[in-house]
Amino acid sequence: RIRASGLKLQLCTNETQAPRAQFVRKLRRLGFDVSVAEVTAPAPAACRLLRERGLRPHLLVHHDLLPEFAEIDKTNPNCVVLGDAAENFTYANLNEAFQLLMGMEKPVLISLGQGRYYKETDGLKLDVGAYMKALEYACDVQAEVVGKPAKSFFESALAELGVPAEQAIMIGDDIVSDVGGAQRCGMRALQVRTGKFRPSDEHHPLVKPDAYVNNLAEAVDIILQQQ
Amino acid sequence: RIRASGLKLQLCTNETQAPRAQFVRKLRRLGFDVSVAEVTAPAPAACRLLRERGLRPHLLVHHDLLPEFAEIDKTNPNCVVLGDAAENFTYANLNEAFQLLMGMEKPVLISLGQGRYYKETDGLKLDVGAYMKALEYACDVQAEVVGKPAKSFFESALAELGVPAEQAIMIGDDIVSDVGGAQRCGMRALQVRTGKFRPSDEHHPLVKPDAYVNNLAEAVDIILQQQ
Repeated sequence: RIRASGLKLQLCTNETQAPRAQFVRKLRRLGFDVSVAEVTAPAPAACRLLRERGLRPHLLVHHDLLPEFAEIDKTNPNCVVLGDAAENFTYANLNEAFQLLMGMEKPVLISLGQGRYYKETDGLKLDVGAYMKALEYACDVQAEVVGKPAKSFFESALAELGVPAEQAIMIGDDIVSDVGGAQRCGMRALQVRTGKFRPSDEHHPLVKPDAYVNNLAEAVDIILQQQ
Repeated sequence: RIRASGLKLQLCTNETQAPRAQFVRKLRRLGFDVSVAEVTAPAPAACRLLRERGLRPHLLVHHDLLPEFAEIDKTNPNCVVLGDAAENFTYANLNEAFQLLMGMEKPVLISLGQGRYYKETDGLKLDVGAYMKALEYACDVQAEVVGKPAKSFFESALAELGVPAEQAIMIGDDIVSDVGGAQRCGMRALQVRTGKFRPSDEHHPLVKPDAYVNNLAEAVDIILQQQ
């Protein structure tokens, strides 16, 4: 319906356990006709940043995410890129990343998100943010976060759309990462009352969405009405 | 020489990879005649705290440390005790501790130290503090730190000696944990220029030892001279 109306569309995800291609396959199975180019995700955003600054990463990420970094020079690393590595977060692997950072004259830690945890069918799971904090403390460095709510992440989604922030609207379920991040970038933002939405979000001390909608379909209704 | 002079002596260690008995065996091999009762260490301090507050811990510690908690009720845990678990810091184990904390009405996280890293013959290793920060962030809690530089830790060493703080002197190589911790407790403190001492410690922005000594033997010389 968004596409049929002539509006442009870009999907912004913090998914870092799998490449965009896998994410797109999942959406297609669910009936959404989406292409990889329409997805803004932390791994390609990190690749852009690595290329711009001539950084060669040591990767501590989920095995399935490695294809996103296939074209990147990883010899003689001068930075560490941290993703939601899940079972790859062994003591040995975290220690290796730590030792590399401590051996750099100016340690550079790039984190593909700063989430505290996420929910899977078998319960809550520690997210990349927890391990980012561990390395920040051990190395006395501040990570550079790629992904929502980083301003640069929304800016690159806007660049891919080719529209200015004030002509774009974000729809999301996360009050801080989706709504707060987009608003700080100059966009308007709707919060859907599905997914990780919690009633307490409506009293969030810092972030207030431009409007609430009960679900994605209602968001589309409202946007199309106002066109 | 300290004992022969009639002064009392207590050893304060943040070692949490092994029980005191093992630590004492090592010192004996090096020629120091020391008993377990003369060692103040984080694990027994944590056990005291657990008993006082009726807490039943889930332990995420080094396997060798488990004997120190043999007498503690660990059924149906209502807190998490974190030590330098080294290879035990798998994603599964850290996630288990995280899930237990998230399931508690008021999560209690007790950390046997807050060190960033330590040095072994094969290089730097992540210490318990890094994992403490990971859990603090993920669970939005503040850990209670047992061990140096916690005031309660020095107070329990003083209680074992049976002397007031102003009659005790600390000797240590760590400017913050040893010297700073002891001074905040009302003791005087000497820093030895051995072990983890770094020349930059002499310009530490917050902590200034009462005196520097080149080694432990010189510390004993000075203390005995002033008696």
